[in-house]
Amino acid sequence: MNSLDLMRSISILSPSKIVMVVIDGLGGLPLSGTGKTELESARRPSLNALAGKSECGLSYPVGRGITPGSAPGHLALFGYDPLNCNVGRGILEAMGIGFDLAPGDIAARGNFCTIDSSGRLIDRRAGRLSTEESSRICQVLDGMLIDGVRVFVRPSKEHRIVVVFRGEGLSEMVSDSDPQQVGVLPKSVSAQNKESEKTASVADKFLARAKEILSGQKLANMILLRGFSKLPCLPTMNDIFQLTPAAIAVYPMYRGLAKVVGMDILPAGMTIADEVMNLSRHFADYDFFFLHVKGTDSAGEDGDFERKVTVIEEFDQSLDDILALNPEVLVVTGDHSTPAIFKGHSWHPVPLLIYSKWCRPGDLVDFSERSCLRGSLGHVDATDVLPLAMAHAQKLNKFGA
Amino acid sequence: MNSLDLMRSISILSPSKIVMVVIDGLGGLPLSGTGKTELESARRPSLNALAGKSECGLSYPVGRGITPGSAPGHLALFGYDPLNCNVGRGILEAMGIGFDLAPGDIAARGNFCTIDSSGRLIDRRAGRLSTEESSRICQVLDGMLIDGVRVFVRPSKEHRIVVVFRGEGLSEMVSDSDPQQVGVLPKSVSAQNKESEKTASVADKFLARAKEILSGQKLANMILLRGFSKLPCLPTMNDIFQLTPAAIAVYPMYRGLAKVVGMDILPAGMTIADEVMNLSRHFADYDFFFLHVKGTDSAGEDGDFERKVTVIEEFDQSLDDILALNPEVLVVTGDHSTPAIFKGHSWHPVPLLIYSKWCRPGDLVDFSERSCLRGSLGHVDATDVLPLAMAHAQKLNKFGA
Repeated sequence: MNSLDLMRSISILSPSKIVMVVIDGLGGLPLSGTGKTELESARRPSLNALAGKSECGLSYPVGRGITPGSAPGHLALFGYDPLNCNVGRGILEAMGIGFDLAPGDIAARGNFCTIDSSGRLIDRRAGRLSTEESSRICQVLDGMLIDGVRVFVRPSKEHRIVVVFRGEGLSEMVSDSDPQQVGVLPKSVSAQNKESEKTASVADKFLARAKEILSGQKLANMILLRGFSKLPCLPTMNDIFQLTPAAIAVYPMYRGLAKVVGMDILPAGMTIADEVMNLSRHFADYDFFFLHVKGTDSAGEDGDFERKVTVIEEFDQSLDDILALNPEVLVVTGDHSTPAIFKGHSWHPVPLLIYSKWCRPGDLVDFSERSCLRGSLGHVDATDVLPLAMAHAQKLNKFGA
Repeated sequence: MNSLDLMRSISILSPSKIVMVVIDGLGGLPLSGTGKTELESARRPSLNALAGKSECGLSYPVGRGITPGSAPGHLALFGYDPLNCNVGRGILEAMGIGFDLAPGDIAARGNFCTIDSSGRLIDRRAGRLSTEESSRICQVLDGMLIDGVRVFVRPSKEHRIVVVFRGEGLSEMVSDSDPQQVGVLPKSVSAQNKESEKTASVADKFLARAKEILSGQKLANMILLRGFSKLPCLPTMNDIFQLTPAAIAVYPMYRGLAKVVGMDILPAGMTIADEVMNLSRHFADYDFFFLHVKGTDSAGEDGDFERKVTVIEEFDQSLDDILALNPEVLVVTGDHSTPAIFKGHSWHPVPLLIYSKWCRPGDLVDFSERSCLRGSLGHVDATDVLPLAMAHAQKLNKFGA
């Protein structure tokens, strides 16, 4: 029996509520001066007090040594084996700009690029043109109808765009047009099987028309496409866990990931306090809440140790407002580590805290990477976090007679 | 290679002896007043002394967050993946009353119930009639022969009974007759495939005859059946591990589980001291002993913290008598946690101690949930406990060249 089948067989509907806070990129590495990580450097009285009453541990998003992207990091926390549910690059980029994807849509990540008069690539990023300029050009290209397929062209950041193909009989099994080097012609999109021939043909026609339309542009005179993908078809959290889940996330990508597993998307606001206010406002309507804190990851990616510390402190100041709602279970963790000194996602395990009245606490006095190492949960796979939360919420039947 | 195949390929016969003590429901949760679990509250000088010389850790019976029934909890400790060997409710109930099951028998859990003159259910439990009354009625129904199938009807507790069908060509793939609600007719037993048609027909004929015979009764005038199941067909511990195993258990259900994996059943007596005396008496005849302590689980289920503490203390007083037999390996653990404050089985991991002369001890000064968290075994799956014991008993060859 695989783990989703096991969960489906023992999950039960109950009125208890689970709040899962994902502090993006929470895990860190110590500064050489202080020997303390971002979390250890933050003033966090509420998190520390909670840790003493909770079960703590370290969570591995995908596996030892594996640095996860945002999709696997989150899907694992939602209970799905990230190795078995791949979210393609095109889909993730479309989610990132908040594009309202429909089942069957094929999304590709695009670049505006520069070609010379012979069609050869000179600059794969069209001089990193501004997002404003890119948005203007996207409007010209957006909405074509090619062989019955609608093609959406939407700006992301700078030269990056998203191209979505919507129509009957499309497939993601087509190759990239991006040759990943300059001095050569962009490749044509080719079908990897019979079912994807229409998609390849439509994509090539789209690229040819875009080339015509863009021929007057100096920099952004062509488009490269890669990472054709479609929405993964996952059973919903309601189907597997009998949960009625909702997501509170400021950034579109995380709302997109939440939608993939069947969560309702609630308003978020701009700040962590806004998010918690919205949690409070909708607390009666759902029994599972995913609340996403983004600032930690952005600060980590920027190498801004102090800003990451500040975001953790900002969350700590909202923690008591979450506890005041009396959820039966509160989970605080991250989807991966983003150590500021590493300036990017990393493979290090992530601090994890699960609070309920059924905790077997250890002897922790704070919430930190170092303490979680000695916590009563030990080292867990991120896919175990939701089953543990379900157990603490008494939403799981006994397994076996 | 799956883990049983691995074990089969490296297990060797040797004179060393393993004693595995399963203190049922051993793991607990702290009382809010003292902050101590049942185990931590018990006077346990012998266990504490042993912990300092042993390898300790925490054992997960099925997986994180999963609350195991008795069957999965024990099968995992006997080395079998509990997700791959399901023991049905009927079989477990039959084991629980000590019914001597034969391979191919189909067992169902039954209820005496009350129906009105139109046949509709009024009370699914026949007013919870006494076990004595139920025993008397069972005798009237026991032993029918229907289409060559012998039907045994035996009392369990109060309204609960066990019905076992013995004959050629029977299958467990039939539906329950219990509609799980009052105000409706009991369902007929239906076959879920071609091979189970005979079983469904015999079960329905049995229920019809029982209805006739019971028509004069005021309360127990009908029977409901559910959980049709047969003995799982597992390879024996002798086949896999080259062990000659024996079980000492006061309660029939645990003897039944031991028989499923090929253990001989030894006399147990009534008390833990009796069990240890019987261990001593048969110590020369086997190389693996499963010794089951039941009182902890019953006390936990009853929410009786103090009684659970007392049973642990009673075991502690017998521990030196076990050590005096000089088994090469002594394992002390539980099949799951049954915290008294939770009043039932729970998902929390279980303290585990493995003693042999080949231990790499940690720095523990006692045997408790908190200390085991820091033990040298760390967090282990319960299916790893027997392989570890086998290793310490030097009953495993090197794997690979």
